[in-house]
Amino acid sequence: MPKLEPYARHLPYSYALGLYPASCCLSARPDLCRRLLLSSRAADSEGAAALQQRAEAAGVRVELADRLLGRLSHKENVFAAMVFTKEEASLDPAAPHVVLDGPGDAGNLGTILRTCLGLGIRDVALLRPAVDAFEPHAVRASMGALFSVRLSYFQDFAEYRQTFMDHALYPFMLEGSTPLSHVAPPEGLWALIFGNEARGLSQDYLHRGQPVRIEQSPAVDSLNLSVAVALGVYCFLHKDKGGTHGS
Amino acid sequence: MPKLEPYARHLPYSYALGLYPASCCLSARPDLCRRLLLSSRAADSEGAAALQQRAEAAGVRVELADRLLGRLSHKENVFAAMVFTKEEASLDPAAPHVVLDGPGDAGNLGTILRTCLGLGIRDVALLRPAVDAFEPHAVRASMGALFSVRLSYFQDFAEYRQTFMDHALYPFMLEGSTPLSHVAPPEGLWALIFGNEARGLSQDYLHRGQPVRIEQSPAVDSLNLSVAVALGVYCFLHKDKGGTHGS
Repeated sequence: MPKLEPYARHLPYSYALGLYPASCCLSARPDLCRRLLLSSRAADSEGAAALQQRAEAAGVRVELADRLLGRLSHKENVFAAMVFTKEEASLDPAAPHVVLDGPGDAGNLGTILRTCLGLGIRDVALLRPAVDAFEPHAVRASMGALFSVRLSYFQDFAEYRQTFMDHALYPFMLEGSTPLSHVAPPEGLWALIFGNEARGLSQDYLHRGQPVRIEQSPAVDSLNLSVAVALGVYCFLHKDKGGTHGS
Repeated sequence: MPKLEPYARHLPYSYALGLYPASCCLSARPDLCRRLLLSSRAADSEGAAALQQRAEAAGVRVELADRLLGRLSHKENVFAAMVFTKEEASLDPAAPHVVLDGPGDAGNLGTILRTCLGLGIRDVALLRPAVDAFEPHAVRASMGALFSVRLSYFQDFAEYRQTFMDHALYPFMLEGSTPLSHVAPPEGLWALIFGNEARGLSQDYLHRGQPVRIEQSPAVDSLNLSVAVALGVYCFLHKDKGGTHGS
């Protein structure tokens, strides 16, 4: 294997920085793990020792790499990093999807992946231009969720739609006609679509499926994107499970 | 007014760093504004000029303060900061509450305040030990929401409960017996209670009100705290607005 470089989008590998993300990578996708990098400062860390043992048992090469870890983590105190092969997946055509059109922030994207996985969504489409989900900052913010979701990039909405024609579409927009709490999730497949953090979705989406608006106070411009995704996903997965007013 | 110091918890004032937070402070609470600090690099900024004009119209003193801004923002490129008087408020006894027991991260707290305000909650109780909501990092993460919510600190849950005896209590816990989507929000007042980011709520809360569990996948340890607060608040405010399966 050639000399490792600081992360760049064109590289075929990336880094899961930190004991917890590195450990998640090894647990969820041992097949993607190339090397475990350890800091010499990790010598006394039980967590690092346990991770090293698991990596060796899985046939993953382990090496000391203080300088590279320092460069990768920008001087943060990082004990370990897993070098892993980047791999896009195919989305499950029979599962609900979250579609992110133009996400612009790697940390946000990581948080969104963690939230999706936590609430039970494993299939996430990214429409370009979109931030790089394999960027170490995104991997870290996902707290390992990146390794347990299926991520797939598409050139644009049209390409996504050609591939998945059966999903009922719900674009989330401030101008959406239906309040989220009034939406009746369909019996069949659905895809929830969210726009860029700053710009939202383009007006084209007003004519795609059933545009949804999350009820919010006029006191703020908009909700945080990961909060919007969480509310949408949760409501679609758990609508109509009972509960009536006044007990 | 004495010489301004870098922020510390004991000081009676804090800083809203950045044009947007400073502007929110001036809009929402001009009575709290003490001084507007500007960077000389802001000379060409239309936003800074507009803010300066509004501050002067409101009788707030404006001054150049490059060195202090540099220290406050840790070398980030901040054009402006509003110096404001810290003020705790009394919670509205007739409104629903969000109660945060032991929040530990200032950035998280800011995000939570923004989310609460965005969804329509204006009354937030903080049970000690709790992070300082007036820390500049929290103010900034709240994107100005800090100035539009009522925040009140309490020594512990007992002190909160002595003050507000009529709110039905809903502690959010992994061990909660009732899934969030099954909860029937009461007709009367309610308080949603959330624990520390890492530790959650203590087991004592299992005997306080109706403990609620957010349905989540076993694939993640727990949801992000601001996501949990968002789901709880949204479901309590918007339950039973219609929507039936299969249309």
